[in-house]
Amino acid sequence: MRQRSDQFTLLVREIPLCIEHKAHGCNVEHFFSKYHPRTYHSYQILSDVKELDHLLKKAKSIMGKIEEGRKKFGFLNDKREPLLSYTSQQNAMKIALLEEKLRKYHDIIHNLQVQTAAKHKELPVAFVTFKSRLGAALASQSQHSLNPLMWITELAPEPRDVSWKNLAIPVRLLPIREFGVIVGAFLLTIFFAIPVTAVQGIAKFEKLKKWFPPAMAINMIPGLSSIVTGYLPSAILNGFIYVVPFAMLAMAKLAGCVSRSNEEIKACNMVFYFLVGNVFFLSLLSGSLLDELEEYLTHPRNFPSHLASAVSAQADFFATYILTSGLSGFSLEILQPGLLSWDLLKSCLCCSRKEKEAYLYSLPHARIIPFISLFLLIGMVYAVVAPLLLPFLIGYFCLGYVVYVNQIEDVYATTYDTFGLYWPHIHHYIIIGILLMQVTMIGLFGLKSKPAASISTIPLLLITLYFNEHCKSRFLPTFHCYPIQEAMENDELDEKSDELEVNYETAADAYCLPCLQPPDFLLASVSTSTQQLMRRLLVIGGIYSLLISPKSQFERNINEEINKVQGASKSCHKQV
Amino acid sequence: MRQRSDQFTLLVREIPLCIEHKAHGCNVEHFFSKYHPRTYHSYQILSDVKELDHLLKKAKSIMGKIEEGRKKFGFLNDKREPLLSYTSQQNAMKIALLEEKLRKYHDIIHNLQVQTAAKHKELPVAFVTFKSRLGAALASQSQHSLNPLMWITELAPEPRDVSWKNLAIPVRLLPIREFGVIVGAFLLTIFFAIPVTAVQGIAKFEKLKKWFPPAMAINMIPGLSSIVTGYLPSAILNGFIYVVPFAMLAMAKLAGCVSRSNEEIKACNMVFYFLVGNVFFLSLLSGSLLDELEEYLTHPRNFPSHLASAVSAQADFFATYILTSGLSGFSLEILQPGLLSWDLLKSCLCCSRKEKEAYLYSLPHARIIPFISLFLLIGMVYAVVAPLLLPFLIGYFCLGYVVYVNQIEDVYATTYDTFGLYWPHIHHYIIIGILLMQVTMIGLFGLKSKPAASISTIPLLLITLYFNEHCKSRFLPTFHCYPIQEAMENDELDEKSDELEVNYETAADAYCLPCLQPPDFLLASVSTSTQQLMRRLLVIGGIYSLLISPKSQFERNINEEINKVQGASKSCHKQV
Repeated sequence: MRQRSDQFTLLVREIPLCIEHKAHGCNVEHFFSKYHPRTYHSYQILSDVKELDHLLKKAKSIMGKIEEGRKKFGFLNDKREPLLSYTSQQNAMKIALLEEKLRKYHDIIHNLQVQTAAKHKELPVAFVTFKSRLGAALASQSQHSLNPLMWITELAPEPRDVSWKNLAIPVRLLPIREFGVIVGAFLLTIFFAIPVTAVQGIAKFEKLKKWFPPAMAINMIPGLSSIVTGYLPSAILNGFIYVVPFAMLAMAKLAGCVSRSNEEIKACNMVFYFLVGNVFFLSLLSGSLLDELEEYLTHPRNFPSHLASAVSAQADFFATYILTSGLSGFSLEILQPGLLSWDLLKSCLCCSRKEKEAYLYSLPHARIIPFISLFLLIGMVYAVVAPLLLPFLIGYFCLGYVVYVNQIEDVYATTYDTFGLYWPHIHHYIIIGILLMQVTMIGLFGLKSKPAASISTIPLLLITLYFNEHCKSRFLPTFHCYPIQEAMENDELDEKSDELEVNYETAADAYCLPCLQPPDFLLASVSTSTQQLMRRLLVIGGIYSLLISPKSQFERNINEEINKVQGASKSCHKQV
Repeated sequence: MRQRSDQFTLLVREIPLCIEHKAHGCNVEHFFSKYHPRTYHSYQILSDVKELDHLLKKAKSIMGKIEEGRKKFGFLNDKREPLLSYTSQQNAMKIALLEEKLRKYHDIIHNLQVQTAAKHKELPVAFVTFKSRLGAALASQSQHSLNPLMWITELAPEPRDVSWKNLAIPVRLLPIREFGVIVGAFLLTIFFAIPVTAVQGIAKFEKLKKWFPPAMAINMIPGLSSIVTGYLPSAILNGFIYVVPFAMLAMAKLAGCVSRSNEEIKACNMVFYFLVGNVFFLSLLSGSLLDELEEYLTHPRNFPSHLASAVSAQADFFATYILTSGLSGFSLEILQPGLLSWDLLKSCLCCSRKEKEAYLYSLPHARIIPFISLFLLIGMVYAVVAPLLLPFLIGYFCLGYVVYVNQIEDVYATTYDTFGLYWPHIHHYIIIGILLMQVTMIGLFGLKSKPAASISTIPLLLITLYFNEHCKSRFLPTFHCYPIQEAMENDELDEKSDELEVNYETAADAYCLPCLQPPDFLLASVSTSTQQLMRRLLVIGGIYSLLISPKSQFERNINEEINKVQGASKSCHKQV
């Protein structure tokens, strides 16, 4: 854990323009070498790379086509000379053309990278690397400018975790985007039940038979129709709920977080509130969430007793829910039906690239943590009302532990470390659970006509709220700070083993924009094998020009193309 | 402003014990010289000084008595020899005895100070001084230990602003104390109306006549009785409200803030909420605040319309209220009747010390700011409902400006700088005013049966709330941070004028506990003039012993006393 580049690096946003040089970059250099002269090392300014990104995508797609072609026509797979038939030569020609195109792109990309590096399109965002963790820790936790809207510093996320696109968003737009996302998530939570009930209404078996006559076949097998009518609504509901985390994640991506981990945490929060609204409250209560919300806003005093009576009535339902979700959820988690069908669909649509897409996904926190937190909440609320529910829950958590230990170790890839940043949010969910439990208790004592007990539970509620506030003010900041003591200890360990310099040099290189890395990888696969192919093509071309006279136009084209390609490759080699 | 000691100094709390030396002090030295080797200068650990404080108070009261006695018997005021009468000699004896007692106290205090300085009673709290503002700013904004409950650092308050007693309170008790204070302030706000109405009920003129027959005299002057019956209730109410800021300040002192400015800010907040509840809402609504609160909790949906109708009905009342409070409040502010009567009372009770107590008070923020904020709130709410109220308000603020510019410049002493720390709170009050205005608008549009306008105001309310949250997260931290840029600039200016060293040396000395300062000031007034007096007394004593034989017991006593005093003064001189 000591070799982390992010411990040496700061993310600095809203860098003002240097009036002298009309650039952001030199201002970073001036600023940090002035205020942190002993620890400042280097900076890496970000640039506007939309165009480059676009070109790189195109180049990559061409590269894909070339490889596809090669595999198809067997230029690379079998080492023997290709058949000198007309079609195979045409194919070779096609590939050569594509490769030439790729070379062109390579040149353009290279030029553009040089231009971008020459600071023409700087963004006011930079990664600043320090010579020690202590320096970075001290600088990250301080306010640098008198104006809190300038020189905003924070510890950089891990290099693999950085969300490069979002860094280009101006900081002043972030609150608006975030507000938009909150409103979107709120609307989704409130109005989610409407399309679900609509689809459930349409998908009734009787209606299905009318609109989709082949469904009558279900009647042929005895018992199947009852299973379909029984399970179809809940299957539809679960299908909708399955999609929600992805929708929330897509929304969170719009909020402009600096790292993917932050996006997932945001999505996780939104999914949790969604589940509390649409699973917990909707299961408890009759009517839509909007009606219930209105009811609570108009008569909040009835809320505890209303909740208590609903909770005690629905104990059986939640026991079943925990059992079924536990068994089905964990088995689905192991089988990964979503990914399986997604990959199947992909491979059917573009079967050739199947091998390339064998990508390991990371643990989908936004899909897993909110559900587990929801069950925790259910457990806490029912701990008072129906303690018999707890053994089911213990079974659920034990099974979950076994399943997820397996999944984390063997199935999912680690694309970034969470560094325990989910804990404050889980703490928050637990507090919400405790508050709901206490409200239920107030209602329950009221229902059992023990007003004294009911009233004396209210201070408990207030103390819980105050405890939450206290934790927020005292402990929450530590989740975003890198303590001086730890930074110094790690620095000392590194100095002992003479690794400090290596580490900060690595850190300085780690935050290079991915699309500014040398584009030679594009030509790597080409150049190793294509020089040979080119020569071969030239020979073939020569033979053709001698053999076939009526195709002179084609021949001329080929020659032109070959010349171009040669010229391009020369210039490319010079530049490289 | 550059010569501020607090810019060089950090307040560190919860210092762990050094295992080797069983002391907190050496741990501070180890810790900061390790993590800030270039900028750390020195530390000043706090000690448990309850006993010392007690002794110092006693010594001071003796000093007061001595001075009183001298003035009374004219030993100092008139330079001529005192009359050698029996009474005057007895008085001289008394003073000499008191002085001897004072010397004893001086010695004890000095010994205790030496003991305290020898680190026997260290508290885990220290002021750490740095060699530069930059070092202090960097260290103050960082988390030092992995455990957020240890090595808690913050920028120190001004030396004259430090609340020394509160620094002795363990940090773990602070949240409990704060919660207690919040609950106390809440209860005071809610139940304030009960004693007021009770007293108002008792103080009715008819009842007064029964219980206090001399009140009948009022009837003699025509018209006076109607004035009394008309103004008595409101005078009682205002009297109660006048006391509230002092009560809140006393409560805030219990919360354990590190500085007196923080105490005042806390009191200011509590008084503002008190006024919003007990002046704004109680004037608007019928019934007690508790009833109203219950009504809102049970039917929150009626709140906007209820508020809107009450607000529009009470426009005249608030216009009058602004006028009367403005005129009477500002004239009372200039006349200072409270302080006047308090001083009068004091001088009547202990008339001799009248001159000593001519103490300049600081601006009572907790009494002034909440009232002005309340008028701002009233203005904002009525800006929609009754804009004709605004001219009155402008008049009020103009008059207030003139009065307070005078008061701040000529009347009140500055005991500490506020450094704009009231601004975030005033911003908060303004936000509350805007929210109330928007709720009133929602209600008003509802009353005018324009539901579309009413509903479309709700997003405005949400956006205001979000704006407040955004300001909190973006701008609030800057009020407690000392920006690196400014620190460096000031350091450079100091270096240019070679003042940096002087400044941090001053800062290191500034945070000495007041009761650990050398106790010689106690003897200063004594020693200058008393050596002479002592010699004179010895002569008188000698004469007496020769002249009057029957008073041998008295004589012996005197001799003993004189010997004691001489011994004490010798040992004292050695130690000094």
